[in-house]
Amino acid sequence: MTKDVPEQQGSFSAKDYHDPPPAPLIDPAELTQWSFYRALIAEFIATLLFLYITVLTVIGYKSTTDPALNADQCGGVGILGIAWAFGGMIFVLVYCTAGISGGHINPAVTFGLFLARKVSLIRAVMYMVAQCLGAICGVGLVKAFNKSLYNRYGGGANELAAGYNKGTGLGAEIIGTFVLVYTVFSATDPKRSARDSHVPVLAPLPIGFAVFMVHLATIPITGTGINPARSLGAAVIYNKDKAWDDQWIFWVGPFVGAAIAAFYHQFILRAGAVKALGSFRSSSHV
Amino acid sequence: MTKDVPEQQGSFSAKDYHDPPPAPLIDPAELTQWSFYRALIAEFIATLLFLYITVLTVIGYKSTTDPALNADQCGGVGILGIAWAFGGMIFVLVYCTAGISGGHINPAVTFGLFLARKVSLIRAVMYMVAQCLGAICGVGLVKAFNKSLYNRYGGGANELAAGYNKGTGLGAEIIGTFVLVYTVFSATDPKRSARDSHVPVLAPLPIGFAVFMVHLATIPITGTGINPARSLGAAVIYNKDKAWDDQWIFWVGPFVGAAIAAFYHQFILRAGAVKALGSFRSSSHV
Amino acid sequence: MTKDVPEQQGSFSAKDYHDPPPAPLIDPAELTQWSFYRALIAEFIATLLFLYITVLTVIGYKSTTDPALNADQCGGVGILGIAWAFGGMIFVLVYCTAGISGGHINPAVTFGLFLARKVSLIRAVMYMVAQCLGAICGVGLVKAFNKSLYNRYGGGANELAAGYNKGTGLGAEIIGTFVLVYTVFSATDPKRSARDSHVPVLAPLPIGFAVFMVHLATIPITGTGINPARSLGAAVIYNKDKAWDDQWIFWVGPFVGAAIAAFYHQFILRAGAVKALGSFRSSSHV
Amino acid sequence: MTKDVPEQQGSFSAKDYHDPPPAPLIDPAELTQWSFYRALIAEFIATLLFLYITVLTVIGYKSTTDPALNADQCGGVGILGIAWAFGGMIFVLVYCTAGISGGHINPAVTFGLFLARKVSLIRAVMYMVAQCLGAICGVGLVKAFNKSLYNRYGGGANELAAGYNKGTGLGAEIIGTFVLVYTVFSATDPKRSARDSHVPVLAPLPIGFAVFMVHLATIPITGTGINPARSLGAAVIYNKDKAWDDQWIFWVGPFVGAAIAAFYHQFILRAGAVKALGSFRSSSHV
Repeated sequence: MTKDVPEQQGSFSAKDYHDPPPAPLIDPAELTQWSFYRALIAEFIATLLFLYITVLTVIGYKSTTDPALNADQCGGVGILGIAWAFGGMIFVLVYCTAGISGGHINPAVTFGLFLARKVSLIRAVMYMVAQCLGAICGVGLVKAFNKSLYNRYGGGANELAAGYNKGTGLGAEIIGTFVLVYTVFSATDPKRSARDSHVPVLAPLPIGFAVFMVHLATIPITGTGINPARSLGAAVIYNKDKAWDDQWIFWVGPFVGAAIAAFYHQFILRAGAVKALGSFRSSSHV
Repeated sequence: MTKDVPEQQGSFSAKDYHDPPPAPLIDPAELTQWSFYRALIAEFIATLLFLYITVLTVIGYKSTTDPALNADQCGGVGILGIAWAFGGMIFVLVYCTAGISGGHINPAVTFGLFLARKVSLIRAVMYMVAQCLGAICGVGLVKAFNKSLYNRYGGGANELAAGYNKGTGLGAEIIGTFVLVYTVFSATDPKRSARDSHVPVLAPLPIGFAVFMVHLATIPITGTGINPARSLGAAVIYNKDKAWDDQWIFWVGPFVGAAIAAFYHQFILRAGAVKALGSFRSSSHV
Repeated sequence: MTKDVPEQQGSFSAKDYHDPPPAPLIDPAELTQWSFYRALIAEFIATLLFLYITVLTVIGYKSTTDPALNADQCGGVGILGIAWAFGGMIFVLVYCTAGISGGHINPAVTFGLFLARKVSLIRAVMYMVAQCLGAICGVGLVKAFNKSLYNRYGGGANELAAGYNKGTGLGAEIIGTFVLVYTVFSATDPKRSARDSHVPVLAPLPIGFAVFMVHLATIPITGTGINPARSLGAAVIYNKDKAWDDQWIFWVGPFVGAAIAAFYHQFILRAGAVKALGSFRSSSHV
Repeated sequence: MTKDVPEQQGSFSAKDYHDPPPAPLIDPAELTQWSFYRALIAEFIATLLFLYITVLTVIGYKSTTDPALNADQCGGVGILGIAWAFGGMIFVLVYCTAGISGGHINPAVTFGLFLARKVSLIRAVMYMVAQCLGAICGVGLVKAFNKSLYNRYGGGANELAAGYNKGTGLGAEIIGTFVLVYTVFSATDPKRSARDSHVPVLAPLPIGFAVFMVHLATIPITGTGINPARSLGAAVIYNKDKAWDDQWIFWVGPFVGAAIAAFYHQFILRAGAVKALGSFRSSSHV
């Protein structure tokens, strides 16, 4: 699939934007640059901070509103506050790391950008490793802070809620990740930047809002993964059967959603499909 | 009404901005361009995602706070979270589709822009069809996820609340849509862009906030439509008498509100009315 | 006080920004321009929409969470939602009207800008009249929608809460309006725009947030006025003794707060005070 | 540590951005400039307003939801509203004071920027004094408004919650301040500004969001300090043993967190470490 992407190059002679060439699958020169290792460190730290803040918010909310301990069930930040924590941290961290690593903080985003040939294979794999390690350390910090609260309130792990079957959970993860990765592609499209040079200013904000929105909708179903590093980190530290049994949903779903978003953006929205629909081109100049 | 718009052209000799010519009512060349069909696909997908996320949030909120099932009535995202879901998704989706289709995602917005001659008749009609189909599919996905919860909690349908008469509901829809479409016109005004070139950067954010605000105010009255595709999609999938009986409110209200906003922007704010008030022009150079 | 402002002009020979000349107290030419009346209409409509949305949110919140009617006390948008309604509407409306009227929507803001000689006396007075009429009409619409709910839940009127004396209420209004008008001055400062030309992009957002913040803090004390048109509009339509008895607080407080903010910005932050502190200038070039 | 920073200068010959020279430790000329004293006044006023709004929100929330006084435990802005108050005020105040004083409003931010040699020692010390005095006055205003409510509801003071040990509280403050100061460095990086000149537009917004996020996560643990002036101001006015006993946590934690963030940004992300890793440079041109 990725081999056909270069055909986009040159299909229009008078473009007002510059498409960067597709990233090579393997780029050995990358490995000799400090900026590559710096990007890995930035992804590690950002994913660590993401999981630390969000899982701490989840545990804090559940402990302050536990009816067994506290009569005031409104005394926490609420599910709305949890959704803000996930979306807001992605906004802040994408803003902070965009210039260093591209601000992925999510293996599904890295996978989508790899399919669109924005990053090399080796960079994609190394990013995912850094993200997963960061997520494990971030959740580990929360557990280290207060082990008993952490274990009592579910450890921030993604699990399918009672009453929903696996197909529904998978569907929720696929569509949720599609929303996120579609927003990432829209926000970083070089075609868009060239035409309306101020649009990218807002890029981290809609990306964070997309995460916020998906959490509002799917927390009651899966707790909302749409980020395999987030689901893996919580599963590794929580380490209960249920979290491991459902783990595949939080990898297959986001990767499928990211692939659909990459396909949608590259072949539908970016006019890559025009070639296959040549009959349109004879009568119009797009 | 729309035939008089060209008089705005040329009424000032030294303008610092460029008014695009009014879109033709019917533009056959449009139909031969891939970018036209791409825009339809983008509107379809965006409206599908809009309804999917928002109706899922509504159903999830009602199921987690049902006193019959759950003692914790604060355990959902709240009405505030629902209002955020509607406003936030419009922000994200307008941002994502602005460069592809103009980012309408709402037949009332399309109708307002058609009245102002920003889009052709054929584009307006096709957009509305794509939006309605997308909305039906989006709500259908939510029902497919969990049919029993969907039916038990009202299906996300817009209905007039007990205690409010039809006139009040219609008024709420008219003014709510006026707020939205007025914001859309303000955000996309070429006069404004030319003078203060950085204003458009924020355009999707105030549009999303306008939707958020109207939901805060009118959810207790009509559940807030201000988007006929949203109301139709939920009515088709929920398919109960009450939702169909009130359906006309959610078409007449938004279309009237959009028309008033188009009139207000084109004839009051854009100085189209100056000609009729020629006495002012003899003594001043605006 | 305003007569001394021109001394700022020319106090630095090499400025990188252009201070517009102070507005005349009375500018008869203004009255012959359509753009002046257009600005009045825009202020009227914006203040109408502001009061309509916010008071409807207040009444809707109180009716859906009334323990006498509804067991679910969490079923409304919350005080947080009310604070969002006020702040968010100011963000949207300042964004929409900034290019037409300057986006005041508040007699205290108009008063502050008049003291700083940004608008003429006649424009300031006419703006305040338009704002007060708009506010009365906006609250009138809410009452027309549902008179019994409107009267039962306090009519959105500003009143001093039990347990706070008049001095505290006045202080809360003064400081709250200071926060708002200080933000308005910071956001529209030509000195700032020149140095960092992208700062104004965000102007309506921090102004809206300032309103949001003040509501979070002072709703329990006065219901938060910081806008005499808002307080007057609700008092006229609600028309109960208590609302009229406290009304002076919501005019004196905001006007004093706005005057302090104008003084702080013009004489402290804009270096107007340098002249009086000439000893600094001999040894430094700011 | 600070003496080695100049080695960053000149380590790359073809930079597309300009690193300002490190601020001198002591700059006597600074003391003769009005702009220096104006910056102190701005920091004083901003920290005063910050504490006034946020502590008033905390006291108002606790008084309106006290089960002893009010049956409606959902009738306040919620912990989510408190987190918004802290984050939103930082957004507004950084926006307003950025052009006057740099918009620190926090001794930990000042300390981090001093370590990175962005401000002189004398400016750093004077800023911290102004911030602490402003915080004391801000909390004092809240106490003056309603002394009995202020004392009954904890005075907005930072204290370690029951069930968490001092190490956890210190860790929460360190990581929380790291998130904030890391965001500040990312938002104000001249390297970033040069490459992508529109990124700084958003600077105050992610900084405010970082504060919002940390409050969501750590209010249940320490009440969230991450600002020694905020913790000192509340302790001085509340003046209870517990607040003073834990006070050291809210100075050591933020200062350590800010130092780590300064180190991370200057030596890892800004490639200051490249020199020590010279082997990379022979084979690559970053």
